[in-house]
Amino acid sequence: MDVVYVDNNATTRVAPEVIEAMLPYFGQWFGNPSSMHTFGGTVGRKLQEAREKTAAFIGAQPEEIIFTGCGTESDSTAIHAAIASNPEKKHILTSRVEHPAVKNLFEHLSKKGYRTTFIPVDRQGRLDMEALEKSLTEDTAVVSLMWANNETGVLFPIETIAPMVRDRGIVFHTDAVQAVGKIPMDVKAAGVDMLSLSGHKIHAPKGVGALYVRKGVKYSPFLIGGHQERGRRGGTENVASIIGMGRACELAADHLKMQSERVRGLRDKLEKGLLDAVPKSMVNGDRENRLPNTTNISFEYVEGESILLMMDRLGICASSGSACTSGSLEPSHVLRAMGVPFTAAHGSIRFSLSIYNTEQEIDFIIEKLPPIIAKLREMSPFWKP
Amino acid sequence: MDVVYVDNNATTRVAPEVIEAMLPYFGQWFGNPSSMHTFGGTVGRKLQEAREKTAAFIGAQPEEIIFTGCGTESDSTAIHAAIASNPEKKHILTSRVEHPAVKNLFEHLSKKGYRTTFIPVDRQGRLDMEALEKSLTEDTAVVSLMWANNETGVLFPIETIAPMVRDRGIVFHTDAVQAVGKIPMDVKAAGVDMLSLSGHKIHAPKGVGALYVRKGVKYSPFLIGGHQERGRRGGTENVASIIGMGRACELAADHLKMQSERVRGLRDKLEKGLLDAVPKSMVNGDRENRLPNTTNISFEYVEGESILLMMDRLGICASSGSACTSGSLEPSHVLRAMGVPFTAAHGSIRFSLSIYNTEQEIDFIIEKLPPIIAKLREMSPFWKP
Repeated sequence: MDVVYVDNNATTRVAPEVIEAMLPYFGQWFGNPSSMHTFGGTVGRKLQEAREKTAAFIGAQPEEIIFTGCGTESDSTAIHAAIASNPEKKHILTSRVEHPAVKNLFEHLSKKGYRTTFIPVDRQGRLDMEALEKSLTEDTAVVSLMWANNETGVLFPIETIAPMVRDRGIVFHTDAVQAVGKIPMDVKAAGVDMLSLSGHKIHAPKGVGALYVRKGVKYSPFLIGGHQERGRRGGTENVASIIGMGRACELAADHLKMQSERVRGLRDKLEKGLLDAVPKSMVNGDRENRLPNTTNISFEYVEGESILLMMDRLGICASSGSACTSGSLEPSHVLRAMGVPFTAAHGSIRFSLSIYNTEQEIDFIIEKLPPIIAKLREMSPFWKP
Repeated sequence: MDVVYVDNNATTRVAPEVIEAMLPYFGQWFGNPSSMHTFGGTVGRKLQEAREKTAAFIGAQPEEIIFTGCGTESDSTAIHAAIASNPEKKHILTSRVEHPAVKNLFEHLSKKGYRTTFIPVDRQGRLDMEALEKSLTEDTAVVSLMWANNETGVLFPIETIAPMVRDRGIVFHTDAVQAVGKIPMDVKAAGVDMLSLSGHKIHAPKGVGALYVRKGVKYSPFLIGGHQERGRRGGTENVASIIGMGRACELAADHLKMQSERVRGLRDKLEKGLLDAVPKSMVNGDRENRLPNTTNISFEYVEGESILLMMDRLGICASSGSACTSGSLEPSHVLRAMGVPFTAAHGSIRFSLSIYNTEQEIDFIIEKLPPIIAKLREMSPFWKP
């Protein structure tokens, strides 16, 4: 199947270099890193290397990295650790545009007796910093804010937020699943307490994630079991995928410049091409402070699902809102929080690129999509040209 | 490295057929199963096939299977679901010989206000059924008992226990991580409410597990996030590993006869060979009701760690107690619960075979190990020949 894959915020192709790094750890070096024998110990050393690579990529120490099963587990672990370590505090704070991994957990905790604040965003998806500052109290256990939005790519000013939160003695966690690998990142410079990342967004496989926990931050395990990860996360380590993740972090470091130049260039070309060719189209989200690979475009008076289906016939893979909330006909909670009008939110498409996309693919979309929109609008009862 | 690997209860080689099944889902069919496009949908269908295969292997319906990140996550999910669904009940029950995934979680819950009962076992590792029955109360939220012990292979009579527990309106969970694939299993015939399994114990990769939840059993998610697994476990599915797990379940079904005949024959040969050649050696655990692949042998008056090191030089990979608790010099909690004398518990070695072991490997161990024991005993201050 020949596809034009511009859905990299949903998931990414595993890099050939990553597959190569993983392969020996399935059938050949399959030992348990906890075993006493050399065969297991060899695997343990490779695990440590992967930990060092992952840590180095975000400016952390190896022992500050806990490998998990996915970004969602990283988020749950961070938020649970923060509230378990501050049992007297009953207020938790996030934004209205978080990924379901944080949003749904906050809604769950709200039913369990936590007072929850969801900070609003403006029309451009920018966080209301004043509301944030006003909402921080002595009772606040944790603030969890995403670094980059998965649907729009809009960046929150984490470097400004982190010290503001931590100065008040509040734990600060950031879900950086979409930001990692697309923009430079240094957890020390940013000053965050905890940071979630996910393998399958950076060309490692699905089923592996990591959580950075700054040395000194109080911690309590979410997955309780064996002594793995220094007693911070039970369960036999996902060896091959963790080794893949280490390799993916090395590659991502090498590719950061490519992200900010080539990928950004392709994204901008796609965006301009579509906006120029399609009337009543607009970009959702702050175009200045945004991931280089993402554009979220509303084509008014058409259904996003219909656009996706028509593109799908041509092999173009994109997304309307987050894949994690698909199956629902409601407009995305992110675009609603931004106040995007109903007619525009319904017709929004997220294009998310990777280093594997080509100029030809972008040209193909710019050629094929505008006639699709025109055709769908002809059938729409709301469209008045 | 040429190894004789008899540590299959710690982890197993990923089967070549499993690697073959997984490979296309890294670099080629890498879509997100939640995506609306055909490319993602194709992956979603393969995921469903894997679910059907996994379910069929244990006699479940596909929708009764929830894929997780590991056996530990399955155990945590089951126990949390049971107590979250029965918030008024404050008593939980397990045995003294569980895997750390259950044991440590119970100890944690005991600190959180739960009354916990750890049912003892006898000298053969058999559960005290009378104590179990007497301990069940109206306040009991969940009973969690392993199907097969990871250190001794001793089987608990799950088919007898499950109805006894469920008849009293108590949720029954079994950690079947070590039993699955080694003995025939039918969750309906056994009558369990929830059952944990792990991929890497049945020749699938590390980092994937499953939880069977019987239709009708009250459930509440542990990992809260996206709508994956019908809203029962958030997080992008570990696609390649889940597909590998489905294939591993098919293979395991084909190999059940081989487990009960060839693997059992090799294990019995190894056991007899070592007991005959080494004085003051004995098998720990009920030899009748035991996994066909496991033998736990105590060589009195020697340190298990020293035996392991000497075997390691010859490339023989075995274990003293569970790999999940290694690094500790304490004798195994399982052997202590069985009342194995200190001098014997310290010198216990677990040999756990798989279908990949050969007669030659068994002969090699029978030839090489007895002289090692003799040499170590010569150096022991406690040994009087």
